[in-house]
Amino acid sequence: MDILEKLKWRYAVKEFDADKKVPEETVKRLLEAVNLSATSMGLQQFRIMVIEDQEMKNRLFELSGTQKQINTASHILVFACLNNLDDEYIEKYTDKMAIERSLPENVAADLKLRFKNMVGSIPKDQKAIWEEKQAYLGLGNLLTVAAIEGVDTCPMEGFSREKYDEILGLKDKQLRAVVICPIGYRSENDRFQHYKKVRLPLEDFMVN
Amino acid sequence: MDILEKLKWRYAVKEFDADKKVPEETVKRLLEAVNLSATSMGLQQFRIMVIEDQEMKNRLFELSGTQKQINTASHILVFACLNNLDDEYIEKYTDKMAIERSLPENVAADLKLRFKNMVGSIPKDQKAIWEEKQAYLGLGNLLTVAAIEGVDTCPMEGFSREKYDEILGLKDKQLRAVVICPIGYRSENDRFQHYKKVRLPLEDFMVN
Repeated sequence: MDILEKLKWRYAVKEFDADKKVPEETVKRLLEAVNLSATSMGLQQFRIMVIEDQEMKNRLFELSGTQKQINTASHILVFACLNNLDDEYIEKYTDKMAIERSLPENVAADLKLRFKNMVGSIPKDQKAIWEEKQAYLGLGNLLTVAAIEGVDTCPMEGFSREKYDEILGLKDKQLRAVVICPIGYRSENDRFQHYKKVRLPLEDFMVN
Repeated sequence: MDILEKLKWRYAVKEFDADKKVPEETVKRLLEAVNLSATSMGLQQFRIMVIEDQEMKNRLFELSGTQKQINTASHILVFACLNNLDDEYIEKYTDKMAIERSLPENVAADLKLRFKNMVGSIPKDQKAIWEEKQAYLGLGNLLTVAAIEGVDTCPMEGFSREKYDEILGLKDKQLRAVVICPIGYRSENDRFQHYKKVRLPLEDFMVN
Protein backbone atom coordinates (compact mmCIF):
# COMPACT_ATOMS: atom_id res chain seq x y z
CA MET A 1 0.00 0.00 0.00
CA ASP A 2 1.30 3.41 -0.88
CA ILE A 3 -0.13 5.82 1.64
CA LEU A 4 0.34 8.83 -0.66
CA GLU A 5 -1.83 7.14 -3.31
CA LYS A 6 -4.52 6.53 -0.68
CA LEU A 7 -4.42 10.18 0.36
CA LYS A 8 -4.71 11.27 -3.27
CA TRP A 9 -7.73 8.96 -3.66
CA ARG A 10 -9.47 10.71 -0.77
CA TYR A 11 -11.61 13.74 -1.46
CA ALA A 12 -14.49 15.45 0.34
CA VAL A 13 -17.42 13.45 -1.06
CA LYS A 14 -20.45 15.54 -1.97
CA GLU A 15 -22.81 12.61 -2.60
CA PHE A 16 -22.57 9.03 -1.39
CA ASP A 17 -24.14 5.95 -2.97
CA ALA A 18 -27.09 5.60 -0.60
CA ASP A 19 -27.44 1.90 -1.41
CA LYS A 20 -23.97 0.97 -0.21
CA LYS A 21 -23.50 0.44 3.51
CA VAL A 22 -20.13 0.35 5.23
CA PRO A 23 -19.92 -3.08 6.92
CA GLU A 24 -20.29 -2.97 10.71
CA GLU A 25 -16.88 -4.62 11.05
CA THR A 26 -15.26 -1.77 9.12
CA VAL A 27 -17.13 0.90 11.08
CA LYS A 28 -15.84 -0.74 14.24
CA ARG A 29 -12.26 -0.67 12.93
CA LEU A 30 -12.59 3.03 12.13
CA LEU A 31 -13.90 3.74 15.62
CA GLU A 32 -11.08 1.73 17.17
CA ALA A 33 -8.64 3.77 15.11
CA VAL A 34 -10.16 7.06 16.25
CA ASN A 35 -10.10 5.82 19.85
CA LEU A 36 -6.34 5.35 19.38
CA SER A 37 -5.85 8.98 18.29
CA ALA A 38 -3.39 11.14 20.14
CA THR A 39 -4.97 13.77 22.40
CA SER A 40 -3.40 16.36 24.68
CA MET A 41 -2.20 14.52 27.81
CA GLY A 42 -4.09 11.50 26.48
CA LEU A 43 -7.24 12.85 28.11
CA GLN A 44 -9.57 11.91 25.22
CA GLN A 45 -11.42 15.21 25.24
CA PHE A 46 -14.03 13.95 22.75
CA ARG A 47 -16.44 11.09 22.08
CA ILE A 48 -18.03 9.74 18.90
CA MET A 49 -21.72 9.30 18.20
CA VAL A 50 -22.56 7.12 15.20
CA ILE A 51 -25.78 7.79 13.31
CA GLU A 52 -27.11 5.10 11.05
CA ASP A 53 -30.88 5.60 11.27
CA GLN A 54 -32.17 6.98 7.96
CA GLU A 55 -34.90 9.08 9.53
CA MET A 56 -32.37 10.79 11.74
CA LYS A 57 -30.08 11.35 8.75
CA ASN A 58 -32.98 12.95 6.87
CA ARG A 59 -33.69 15.20 9.81
CA LEU A 60 -30.06 16.28 10.07
CA PHE A 61 -29.99 16.81 6.30
CA GLU A 62 -32.60 19.53 6.74
CA LEU A 63 -30.47 21.13 9.45
CA SER A 64 -27.23 21.01 7.47
CA GLY A 65 -28.12 23.16 4.49
CA THR A 66 -29.59 20.09 2.68
CA GLN A 67 -26.12 18.89 1.81
CA LYS A 68 -26.46 15.46 0.20
CA GLN A 69 -23.52 14.00 2.11
CA ILE A 70 -25.79 13.81 5.13
CA ASN A 71 -28.77 11.88 3.81
CA THR A 72 -26.83 9.64 1.42
CA ALA A 73 -24.10 8.63 3.88
CA SER A 74 -23.91 5.12 5.23
CA HIS A 75 -23.10 6.41 8.72
CA ILE A 76 -22.48 9.85 10.19
CA LEU A 77 -19.77 10.17 12.82
CA VAL A 78 -20.36 13.08 15.18
CA PHE A 79 -17.29 14.26 17.08
CA ALA A 80 -18.56 15.63 20.39
CA CYS A 81 -16.44 17.26 23.09
CA LEU A 82 -16.95 16.86 26.82
CA ASN A 83 -18.55 19.80 28.62
CA ASN A 84 -17.29 18.54 31.94
CA LEU A 85 -13.58 17.92 31.60
CA ASP A 86 -13.03 18.93 35.22
CA ASP A 87 -10.90 17.81 38.16
CA GLU A 88 -13.20 14.86 38.76
CA TYR A 89 -12.73 13.67 35.17
CA ILE A 90 -8.94 14.03 35.45
CA GLU A 91 -8.94 12.07 38.71
CA LYS A 92 -10.93 9.23 37.19
CA TYR A 93 -8.63 9.20 34.16
CA THR A 94 -5.40 9.16 36.17
CA ASP A 95 -6.81 6.48 38.50
CA LYS A 96 -7.49 4.30 35.46
CA MET A 97 -3.99 5.01 34.13
CA ALA A 98 -2.41 4.20 37.50
CA ILE A 99 -4.15 0.83 37.60
CA GLU A 100 -3.46 -0.12 33.98
CA ARG A 101 0.19 0.87 34.26
CA SER A 102 0.64 -0.40 37.83
CA LEU A 103 2.04 2.96 38.90
CA PRO A 104 3.26 3.35 42.51
CA GLU A 105 0.90 5.45 44.62
CA ASN A 106 3.17 8.49 44.87
CA VAL A 107 3.78 8.55 41.10
CA ALA A 108 0.04 8.37 40.48
CA ALA A 109 -0.60 11.20 42.95
CA ASP A 110 2.07 13.36 41.27
CA LEU A 111 0.58 12.68 37.85
CA LYS A 112 -2.90 13.59 39.05
CA LEU A 113 -1.66 16.88 40.43
CA ARG A 114 0.38 17.66 37.33
CA PHE A 115 -2.53 16.99 34.97
CA LYS A 116 -4.90 19.07 37.09
CA ASN A 117 -2.42 21.93 37.13
CA MET A 118 -1.82 21.70 33.39
CA VAL A 119 -5.52 21.73 32.54
CA GLY A 120 -6.15 24.35 35.23
CA SER A 121 -3.51 26.62 33.68
CA ILE A 122 -5.40 26.84 30.38
CA PRO A 123 -7.19 30.22 30.32
CA LYS A 124 -10.97 29.79 30.71
CA ASP A 125 -11.75 31.20 27.27
CA GLN A 126 -9.21 28.83 25.68
CA LYS A 127 -10.28 25.55 27.27
CA ALA A 128 -13.16 24.73 24.92
CA ILE A 129 -10.96 25.59 21.93
CA TRP A 130 -8.18 23.35 23.23
CA GLU A 131 -10.69 20.50 23.65
CA GLU A 132 -12.06 20.98 20.15
CA LYS A 133 -8.61 20.95 18.59
CA GLN A 134 -8.18 17.43 19.96
CA ALA A 135 -11.34 16.37 18.12
CA TYR A 136 -9.76 17.65 14.91
CA LEU A 137 -6.66 15.55 15.63
CA GLY A 138 -8.96 12.55 15.82
CA LEU A 139 -10.75 13.58 12.65
CA GLY A 140 -7.42 13.88 10.81
CA ASN A 141 -6.60 10.35 11.89
CA LEU A 142 -10.04 9.09 10.82
CA LEU A 143 -9.78 10.56 7.32
CA THR A 144 -6.45 8.83 6.74
CA VAL A 145 -7.48 5.47 8.18
CA ALA A 146 -10.76 5.52 6.25
CA ALA A 147 -8.84 6.17 3.02
CA ILE A 148 -6.61 3.19 3.80
CA GLU A 149 -9.69 1.04 4.33
CA GLY A 150 -11.26 2.29 1.08
CA VAL A 151 -14.04 4.15 2.87
CA ASP A 152 -15.08 7.58 1.64
CA THR A 153 -15.54 10.53 3.96
CA CYS A 154 -16.52 14.18 4.09
CA PRO A 155 -15.42 16.25 7.07
CA MET A 156 -18.03 18.95 7.70
CA GLU A 157 -18.19 22.09 9.81
CA GLY A 158 -21.27 23.58 8.13
CA PHE A 159 -24.04 22.47 10.46
CA SER A 160 -25.89 23.96 13.41
CA ARG A 161 -24.06 22.80 16.49
CA GLU A 162 -26.86 23.91 18.78
CA LYS A 163 -29.52 22.03 16.84
CA TYR A 164 -27.39 18.90 16.61
CA ASP A 165 -26.83 19.02 20.37
CA GLU A 166 -30.55 19.28 20.92
CA ILE A 167 -31.78 16.67 18.46
CA LEU A 168 -29.08 14.15 19.27
CA GLY A 169 -29.54 14.67 22.99
CA LEU A 170 -25.88 15.57 23.41
CA LYS A 171 -26.50 18.43 25.82
CA ASP A 172 -28.08 16.09 28.37
CA LYS A 173 -24.99 13.91 28.14
CA GLN A 174 -22.71 16.90 28.85
CA LEU A 175 -21.40 16.82 25.28
CA ARG A 176 -21.34 19.26 22.37
CA ALA A 177 -21.09 18.51 18.63
CA VAL A 178 -17.87 19.96 17.26
CA VAL A 179 -17.38 18.53 13.79
CA ILE A 180 -19.04 15.73 11.80
CA CYS A 181 -17.89 13.19 9.25
CA PRO A 182 -20.33 11.27 7.06
CA ILE A 183 -18.78 8.05 5.74
CA GLY A 184 -19.82 5.71 2.92
CA TYR A 185 -18.94 5.09 -0.71
CA ARG A 186 -18.83 7.82 -3.35
CA SER A 187 -21.77 7.98 -5.73
CA GLU A 188 -21.17 7.71 -9.46
CA ASN A 189 -23.10 10.97 -9.73
CA ASP A 190 -20.59 12.90 -7.68
CA ARG A 191 -18.63 14.85 -10.27
CA PHE A 192 -16.15 16.06 -7.65
CA GLN A 193 -14.37 12.70 -7.70
CA HIS A 194 -13.09 13.54 -11.18
CA TYR A 195 -11.66 16.92 -10.27
CA LYS A 196 -7.93 17.31 -9.93
CA LYS A 197 -6.80 17.66 -6.32
CA VAL A 198 -5.55 21.21 -5.91
CA ARG A 199 -2.57 21.62 -3.61
CA LEU A 200 0.31 23.98 -3.18
CA PRO A 201 3.60 22.81 -4.68
CA LEU A 202 5.58 21.26 -1.83
CA GLU A 203 8.14 24.08 -1.94
CA ASP A 204 5.38 26.64 -1.28
CA PHE A 205 3.75 24.53 1.43
CA MET A 206 7.06 24.51 3.25
CA VAL A 207 8.39 27.62 4.93
CA ASN A 208 12.08 28.38 4.66
CA MET B 1 -0.10 -3.79 7.20
CA ASP B 2 -2.65 -3.61 9.96
CA ILE B 3 -3.32 0.06 10.60
CA LEU B 4 -4.61 -0.59 14.13
CA GLU B 5 -1.29 -2.23 15.04
CA LYS B 6 0.55 0.81 13.67
CA LEU B 7 -1.61 3.14 15.75
CA LYS B 8 -0.97 1.05 18.85
CA TRP B 9 2.76 1.25 18.15
CA ARG B 10 2.58 5.05 18.13
CA TYR B 11 3.04 6.92 21.39
CA ALA B 12 4.11 10.44 22.32
CA VAL B 13 7.87 9.99 22.43
CA LYS B 14 9.58 11.73 25.35
CA GLU B 15 13.15 11.15 24.15
CA PHE B 16 14.42 10.37 20.67
CA ASP B 17 17.66 8.64 19.74
CA ALA B 18 19.66 11.72 18.81
CA ASP B 19 22.01 9.67 16.62
CA LYS B 20 19.30 8.43 14.29
CA LYS B 21 18.22 10.74 11.50
CA VAL B 22 15.03 10.32 9.50
CA PRO B 23 16.15 9.98 5.84
CA GLU B 24 15.40 13.05 3.71
CA GLU B 25 13.31 10.89 1.37
CA THR B 26 11.06 9.88 4.28
CA VAL B 27 10.76 13.45 5.56
CA LYS B 28 9.68 14.46 2.07
CA ARG B 29 7.03 11.72 1.99
CA LEU B 30 5.67 12.90 5.33
CA LEU B 31 5.49 16.48 4.08
CA GLU B 32 3.75 15.36 0.91
CA ALA B 33 1.25 13.47 3.05
CA VAL B 34 0.57 16.54 5.21
CA ASN B 35 0.20 18.66 2.07
CA LEU B 36 -2.56 16.22 1.02
CA SER B 37 -4.48 16.75 4.29
CA ALA B 38 -8.08 17.85 4.15
CA THR B 39 -8.68 21.48 5.14
CA SER B 40 -11.85 23.53 5.28
CA MET B 41 -12.74 24.48 1.67
CA GLY B 42 -9.31 23.10 0.73
CA LEU B 43 -7.81 26.49 1.56
CA GLN B 44 -4.67 25.08 3.21
CA GLN B 45 -4.78 27.44 6.17
CA PHE B 46 -1.36 26.35 7.41
CA ARG B 47 2.23 25.79 6.31
CA ILE B 48 5.05 23.62 7.64
CA MET B 49 8.50 24.74 8.72
CA VAL B 50 11.06 21.96 9.13
CA ILE B 51 13.87 22.45 11.61
CA GLU B 52 16.91 20.25 11.32
CA ASP B 53 19.71 22.50 12.55
CA GLN B 54 20.96 21.26 15.94
CA GLU B 55 21.78 24.72 17.25
CA MET B 56 18.24 25.87 16.54
CA LYS B 57 16.84 22.73 18.18
CA ASN B 58 18.93 23.46 21.26
CA ARG B 59 17.63 27.02 21.35
CA LEU B 60 14.03 25.87 21.05
CA PHE B 61 14.69 23.23 23.72
CA GLU B 62 15.37 26.06 26.17
CA LEU B 63 12.09 27.72 25.15
CA SER B 64 10.00 24.57 25.44
CA GLY B 65 10.45 23.73 29.10
CA THR B 66 13.65 21.77 28.29
CA GLN B 67 11.61 18.84 27.02
CA LYS B 68 14.03 16.33 25.52
CA GLN B 69 11.82 15.65 22.51
CA ILE B 70 13.01 18.95 21.11
CA ASN B 71 16.78 18.61 21.24
CA THR B 72 16.91 14.87 20.53
CA ALA B 73 14.51 14.92 17.55
CA SER B 74 15.77 14.29 14.05
CA HIS B 75 13.56 17.07 12.68
CA ILE B 76 10.94 19.37 14.19
CA LEU B 77 7.85 20.12 12.13
CA VAL B 78 6.27 23.45 13.03
CA PHE B 79 2.65 23.86 11.94
CA ALA B 80 2.17 27.57 11.28
CA CYS B 81 -1.10 29.24 10.32
CA LEU B 82 -1.47 32.10 7.88
CA ASN B 83 -2.06 35.53 9.39
CA ASN B 84 -3.36 36.85 6.08
CA LEU B 85 -6.02 34.47 4.85
CA ASP B 86 -7.92 37.35 3.26
CA ASP B 87 -9.89 37.98 0.07
CA GLU B 88 -6.68 38.29 -1.90
CA TYR B 89 -5.54 34.86 -0.71
CA ILE B 90 -8.91 33.33 -1.61
CA GLU B 91 -8.78 34.90 -5.06
CA LYS B 92 -5.33 33.52 -5.72
CA TYR B 93 -6.43 30.10 -4.49
CA THR B 94 -9.60 29.97 -6.61
CA ASP B 95 -7.71 31.24 -9.66
CA LYS B 96 -5.26 28.37 -9.25
CA MET B 97 -8.15 25.92 -8.83
CA ALA B 98 -9.93 27.30 -11.89
CA ILE B 99 -6.83 26.77 -14.03
CA GLU B 100 -5.99 23.30 -12.70
CA ARG B 101 -9.59 22.11 -13.10
CA SER B 102 -10.24 24.00 -16.34
CA LEU B 103 -13.35 25.58 -14.83
CA PRO B 104 -15.48 27.83 -17.06
CA GLU B 105 -15.13 31.53 -16.19
CA ASN B 106 -18.60 31.89 -14.65
CA VAL B 107 -18.14 28.79 -12.45
CA ALA B 108 -14.81 30.13 -11.23
CA ALA B 109 -16.33 33.52 -10.46
CA ASP B 110 -19.19 31.88 -8.52
CA LEU B 111 -16.73 29.78 -6.55
CA LYS B 112 -14.61 32.80 -5.71
CA LEU B 113 -17.64 34.67 -4.41
CA ARG B 114 -18.91 31.66 -2.43
CA PHE B 115 -15.56 31.07 -0.77
CA LYS B 116 -15.19 34.75 0.11
CA ASN B 117 -18.68 34.78 1.59
CA MET B 118 -18.09 31.59 3.55
CA VAL B 119 -14.82 32.81 5.05
CA GLY B 120 -16.31 36.27 5.52
CA SER B 121 -19.22 34.80 7.49
CA ILE B 122 -16.90 33.38 10.15
CA PRO B 123 -17.10 35.68 13.20
CA LYS B 124 -13.87 37.69 13.62
CA ASP B 125 -13.05 36.10 16.97
CA GLN B 126 -13.53 32.61 15.51
CA LYS B 127 -11.42 32.92 12.37
CA ALA B 128 -8.02 32.25 13.92
CA ILE B 129 -9.49 29.29 15.83
CA TRP B 130 -11.00 27.89 12.64
CA GLU B 131 -7.63 28.21 10.90
CA GLU B 132 -5.82 26.48 13.74
CA LYS B 133 -8.26 23.58 13.79
CA GLN B 134 -7.21 22.85 10.20
CA ALA B 135 -3.59 22.59 11.35
CA TYR B 136 -4.69 19.94 13.85
CA LEU B 137 -6.40 18.03 11.03
CA GLY B 138 -3.06 18.01 9.27
CA LEU B 139 -1.27 16.97 12.44
CA GLY B 140 -3.70 14.07 12.92
CA ASN B 141 -2.89 12.94 9.41
CA LEU B 142 0.86 13.30 10.01
CA LEU B 143 0.83 11.18 13.18
CA THR B 144 -0.92 8.33 11.38
CA VAL B 145 1.24 8.46 8.25
CA ALA B 146 4.43 8.67 10.32
CA ALA B 147 3.34 5.57 12.29
CA ILE B 148 2.79 3.74 8.99
CA GLU B 149 6.28 4.74 7.87
CA GLY B 150 7.79 3.65 11.19
CA VAL B 151 8.71 7.19 12.20
CA ASP B 152 8.16 8.27 15.79
CA THR B 153 6.49 11.54 16.70
CA CYS B 154 5.44 13.71 19.61
CA PRO B 155 2.71 16.30 19.06
CA MET B 156 3.37 19.26 21.37
CA GLU B 157 1.38 22.28 22.47
CA GLY B 158 3.62 23.21 25.40
CA PHE B 159 5.87 25.85 23.87
CA SER B 160 5.87 29.63 23.67
CA ARG B 161 4.14 30.51 20.45
CA GLU B 162 5.31 34.11 20.62
CA LYS B 163 8.95 33.17 21.08
CA TYR B 164 8.82 30.56 18.33
CA ASP B 165 7.31 33.15 15.98
CA GLU B 166 10.11 35.53 16.80
CA ILE B 167 13.08 33.16 16.67
CA LEU B 168 11.89 31.32 13.58
CA GLY B 169 11.04 34.58 11.82
CA LEU B 170 7.46 33.46 11.30
CA LYS B 171 5.91 36.81 12.12
CA ASP B 172 7.73 38.49 9.24
CA LYS B 173 6.31 35.85 6.93
CA GLN B 174 2.75 36.54 8.16
CA LEU B 175 2.65 33.18 9.93
CA ARG B 176 2.13 32.03 13.53
CA ALA B 177 3.27 28.78 15.15
CA VAL B 178 0.25 26.76 16.26
CA VAL B 179 1.46 23.29 17.17
CA ILE B 180 4.74 21.43 16.71
CA CYS B 181 5.72 17.84 16.08
CA PRO B 182 9.27 16.57 16.60
CA ILE B 183 9.95 13.40 14.60
CA GLY B 184 12.68 10.79 14.85
CA TYR B 185 13.23 7.36 16.37
CA ARG B 186 12.43 6.51 20.00
CA SER B 187 15.41 6.27 22.34
CA GLU B 188 16.04 3.06 24.24
CA ASN B 189 16.06 5.25 27.35
CA ASP B 190 12.49 6.38 26.90
CA ARG B 191 10.57 4.31 29.43
CA PHE B 192 7.23 5.57 28.10
CA GLN B 193 7.45 3.18 25.15
CA HIS B 194 6.90 0.30 27.58
CA TYR B 195 3.77 1.73 29.19
CA LYS B 196 0.39 0.31 28.30
CA LYS B 197 -1.64 2.60 26.05
CA VAL B 198 -4.56 3.83 28.14
CA ARG B 199 -7.82 4.25 26.25
CA LEU B 200 -11.50 4.16 27.02
CA PRO B 201 -13.23 0.88 26.20
CA LEU B 202 -14.83 1.36 22.77
CA GLU B 203 -18.33 1.24 24.28
CA ASP B 204 -17.49 4.20 26.53
CA PHE B 205 -15.81 6.13 23.73
CA MET B 206 -19.00 5.83 21.72
CA VAL B 207 -22.10 7.79 22.68
CA ASN B 208 -25.46 6.07 22.43
